[in-house]
Amino acid sequence: MDVTLIKNPKFLKKMSIGQMNALAADIRHFLIKKLSKTGGHLGPNLGVVELTLALHRVFNSPSDKLIWDVGHQSYVHKILTGRGDQFDSLRQFHGLCGFPKRSESEHDVWETGHSSTSLSAALGMAVARDLKKEKFDVIAIIGDGALTGGMALEALNNIGQLKKDMIIILNDNEMSIAPNVGAMHNMLDRIRSAEKYNRAKEDIEYLMKKIPAFGGRLASVAERVKDRLKYMVVSGVFFEELGITYQGPVDGHNLSTLIDNLELARKRKGPVLIHVLTQKGKGYKPAEMDSIGTWHGPGPYKIESGAFIKPVTDAPSYSKVVNDSLEELARKDKRIVVITPAMVVGSKLEGFAREFPDRLFDVGIAEQHAATFAAGLATQKMKPVLSIYSTFMQRAYDQMIHDVCRQNLNVVITVDRAGLVGADGETHQGVFDISFLRALPNITIMMGKDENELRNMIYTAINYDNGPIAVRFPRGNGYGVAFDKEPVRLEIGKWEVLRDGNDGAILSFGPMLKVAMEAAKSLQSEGIQISVINARFIKPLDTELLKKLAAHKMPILTLEESILAGGFGSSVLEFYSECGIHDQTVELMGIPDRFVEHGSVKELLKELGLTSERVCTRIRQMLKNSKEPDQTERQRITLP
Amino acid sequence: MDVTLIKNPKFLKKMSIGQMNALAADIRHFLIKKLSKTGGHLGPNLGVVELTLALHRVFNSPSDKLIWDVGHQSYVHKILTGRGDQFDSLRQFHGLCGFPKRSESEHDVWETGHSSTSLSAALGMAVARDLKKEKFDVIAIIGDGALTGGMALEALNNIGQLKKDMIIILNDNEMSIAPNVGAMHNMLDRIRSAEKYNRAKEDIEYLMKKIPAFGGRLASVAERVKDRLKYMVVSGVFFEELGITYQGPVDGHNLSTLIDNLELARKRKGPVLIHVLTQKGKGYKPAEMDSIGTWHGPGPYKIESGAFIKPVTDAPSYSKVVNDSLEELARKDKRIVVITPAMVVGSKLEGFAREFPDRLFDVGIAEQHAATFAAGLATQKMKPVLSIYSTFMQRAYDQMIHDVCRQNLNVVITVDRAGLVGADGETHQGVFDISFLRALPNITIMMGKDENELRNMIYTAINYDNGPIAVRFPRGNGYGVAFDKEPVRLEIGKWEVLRDGNDGAILSFGPMLKVAMEAAKSLQSEGIQISVINARFIKPLDTELLKKLAAHKMPILTLEESILAGGFGSSVLEFYSECGIHDQTVELMGIPDRFVEHGSVKELLKELGLTSERVCTRIRQMLKNSKEPDQTERQRITLP
Repeated sequence: MDVTLIKNPKFLKKMSIGQMNALAADIRHFLIKKLSKTGGHLGPNLGVVELTLALHRVFNSPSDKLIWDVGHQSYVHKILTGRGDQFDSLRQFHGLCGFPKRSESEHDVWETGHSSTSLSAALGMAVARDLKKEKFDVIAIIGDGALTGGMALEALNNIGQLKKDMIIILNDNEMSIAPNVGAMHNMLDRIRSAEKYNRAKEDIEYLMKKIPAFGGRLASVAERVKDRLKYMVVSGVFFEELGITYQGPVDGHNLSTLIDNLELARKRKGPVLIHVLTQKGKGYKPAEMDSIGTWHGPGPYKIESGAFIKPVTDAPSYSKVVNDSLEELARKDKRIVVITPAMVVGSKLEGFAREFPDRLFDVGIAEQHAATFAAGLATQKMKPVLSIYSTFMQRAYDQMIHDVCRQNLNVVITVDRAGLVGADGETHQGVFDISFLRALPNITIMMGKDENELRNMIYTAINYDNGPIAVRFPRGNGYGVAFDKEPVRLEIGKWEVLRDGNDGAILSFGPMLKVAMEAAKSLQSEGIQISVINARFIKPLDTELLKKLAAHKMPILTLEESILAGGFGSSVLEFYSECGIHDQTVELMGIPDRFVEHGSVKELLKELGLTSERVCTRIRQMLKNSKEPDQTERQRITLP
Repeated sequence: MDVTLIKNPKFLKKMSIGQMNALAADIRHFLIKKLSKTGGHLGPNLGVVELTLALHRVFNSPSDKLIWDVGHQSYVHKILTGRGDQFDSLRQFHGLCGFPKRSESEHDVWETGHSSTSLSAALGMAVARDLKKEKFDVIAIIGDGALTGGMALEALNNIGQLKKDMIIILNDNEMSIAPNVGAMHNMLDRIRSAEKYNRAKEDIEYLMKKIPAFGGRLASVAERVKDRLKYMVVSGVFFEELGITYQGPVDGHNLSTLIDNLELARKRKGPVLIHVLTQKGKGYKPAEMDSIGTWHGPGPYKIESGAFIKPVTDAPSYSKVVNDSLEELARKDKRIVVITPAMVVGSKLEGFAREFPDRLFDVGIAEQHAATFAAGLATQKMKPVLSIYSTFMQRAYDQMIHDVCRQNLNVVITVDRAGLVGADGETHQGVFDISFLRALPNITIMMGKDENELRNMIYTAINYDNGPIAVRFPRGNGYGVAFDKEPVRLEIGKWEVLRDGNDGAILSFGPMLKVAMEAAKSLQSEGIQISVINARFIKPLDTELLKKLAAHKMPILTLEESILAGGFGSSVLEFYSECGIHDQTVELMGIPDRFVEHGSVKELLKELGLTSERVCTRIRQMLKNSKEPDQTERQRITLP
């Protein structure tokens, strides 16, 4: 079957199980082929082919609400709801989103990207339905990894209380993004080994039969025991304790079992959890064999061999540089421990994990806990490194404020994926952290101009004992610059003049410095001399240099790959205002007041106007508008 | 015993149980007396008198680490660690902090204020201890309400996995701040009714005895069943499932039982949870009888009658105004539902809860879930009102970004305790929300000048259908102003000129407007004419008015009870920069780059320099420094 011709899922109602199995094979074939070109979340989607077919068979989307937790497993859903023909543009600029998107289809009723939100959303929809006396089913599909996120547990607690009709599909594939961790995983593991539990059930029944039915006392005893044994025997004791009916475990690749279970759950009153066992990567050998998560969201690959088609670069990724620096430093400094919320693979911490298995803590998808756990370590004079994506730090914001910054603890935060992230899009852009972190007292924030400076910053951060310190770095690879023989400790709050010119200055940091340098070079050919300053400390600012710029009446352009509201540029404005300098020209370039969709970073920067061409235009305009340069006053910034 | 003479808890080791019980009575008497004058968290502390005595008897603080979750129950601990003589200054400016404070005592090893952080911190300390091969005990004391916070559940998951030696005291008083809610509460309730569980245990034993021991099969069956029955019989099935040894329930007011249990737990390997049942308010009748939480953290009261000594004001509290407005509007608008994370009493939502029990959702201490639950409701065209303290919204930041703002859902956020909160201090000041919220696309942020404008803002927010909208309001009471007969809908982004003067302008909002008006009046007597503008929309700005001010070359002072970095003033600077207006004088007054301790709001404002006197000084300075006013250009702002 040509899956690109599917318009909506209604046709599934009439299909035989055999036909549906054939369709499942077609969908797998389609996904493996398409994703080999575009990349994307192959593993998770191959795992939920039958589950998605069964869901659309039993329920009526969009009147029934399907809520995909995280959302990277929604490709099959997208195919069945008429978007198979758009897969050539998957995760590309203006193309099909890799996550559910309400503007794409009425079947996408809830948008995601971050994990563990589906249960709260589903409960909201169920409550709204009942208040409005409407009739529809609400189904949340959540992975075992996402279930350990605090907010999912908060929601379970509330769901057990409110007892609304709703269905939770626990998609248990034994691995979320990375191999799963935590006690809840172990518990699911025990349930998973159904054999043991089934034997328990048999045992109880055997016991019951052996007991002579002699009178009321024992009968009622047996009755009561039987009732309570339910917890254990039916296995899902954890959920039942919370007041949620448990069904399963169910084979997630057996369509008839799935359909039967969904039908049963649909008829039941109150919240029902169906524990579905699936295999990530099912149907594609290289992905099935994957044990560490490399097929979770691969780039393009060769179908036959399963070899990844790597972009041609010899430069190490920024994440890898951080790992290597930490490994290097941890050999001498026993205080260093690393905490990651399920991102060992994502943040390329495998090396550290291998060399220091006792000093790397993968706490699962649990950002709040991760941050405060780090704070706890810091109180005992350890040097915890909280490795966290910018976008996921949003989950640990109160912990950053209340536990880390307020107690002024020596926690190093390595902020991965800072800035635009590309294909993951809106939900994953690391563009808010400067605004929300720099508002906090006690914190220091840095970003390096290249991988060598990043290494020096890690070194600086580890040796900084004056409170929390964050090192931002972008997704992707460095430039292939040489590393200093020994890491260099940077002076806190000291910027670097990369280029000297006396018509104006660009203040920037991280990858945008390259754009700034290009612009400065291009303007030079027009006779405009622009300084470029590596504002590698985002907080604190280099106030001495800023004062010097003001003294020289240098028009300033700040350039950042970050939201403008409350960002770095804003802090420069604040500084001059605080100094009572009210005639200093400072213009801000960055990300305007909107969310940024998916696309390549290059395309996104172009769309946002963060290119060297636009920087040139802006500077020309700025210089034209600012007062006539007083060349006698203006001098070179003097390279250090 | 005079408890103010206690220097450290060592003396407890030698006491008899009888002596300790007498001491418990003395401590209760002391607390009831002292807090009747100062106010403070009476209920929680009366509940943990014996528990705290037992802890300090069995463990050796500070080498053993006692970590108080939330921390408002640390008064007894403060008395036993030599701070009894400071209780006259409790929660007062430069006085004893109402929460653990590391600078106060070496016995305070972890600072809190927000709930659910203790388990993560304790795990961090236990891990650090083992890595450093040190020997000490780590004990976290957490309430049943705090346990439902997502981060506590994340931590439990990790604790069960890492299996470090540590002790968790579950202080189960059946009520956190408000009557507890949620499925986990129900579960604890079931455990609490120990009678039922003990009967189960008896039943099993009875059954076992009746089974004739005939051969291997049944013996091994019985064995296995017995083993598995542990989960159920020992009751703490939930914790045991997570890999945490469960002890209890234990009578939290029986010193010998407590001591025995602590000793036992101390000897055990791996994480142990002791389920301690306590009574909040124990030993003071009015507090014991409290069923809704009014004795959780009362102000001063009369000891004999238990009557509260209310501050003399006829003005309603801002929280009450919000409740009343919502009640009023909800009568006509069936879309309105209210969500609160355990703050029905705190945010004075009792009226709404009574009138619309089906439309108020107290989700427990679960801010993340609360926000996304609201978002889920909004997708179904309900009008959810997320009622949340500014400081607790920090816990729901990612949910505000990822679920509410990104999906541009019509969620109304009533931000209680915005600005300085006074006695609760550092952890509770609502001074970051402007910075962290205004960075988010799609959101509108307001704050009213008085209770009438607050009511109008609630009305405006409920009738706004263009995305999320936040209404900030301070702790405490309004001014007693008259209410408009019918609520008035405000034009989004439109400010109000309260006072017209052509020497300069103060832009402010909320309670700081009173300070601004006083300053303006005072300056008038010196012949300085200052406009005062009610910048009631913090986002979006009134750009028209801002342009007019710039056109008139009016020096501007922004004044906010909020952190300066990325705050409202910063947004004004950004606006002028964006317009290419680089010679506009804008100065910022607000909270500098530090955390603000406890004290009365008045004292804190004085310390922070946010008084009318300092505003006058600043304006005089600003006008002196700014260029000579071009009076021909400057005109009155024209009152609307």
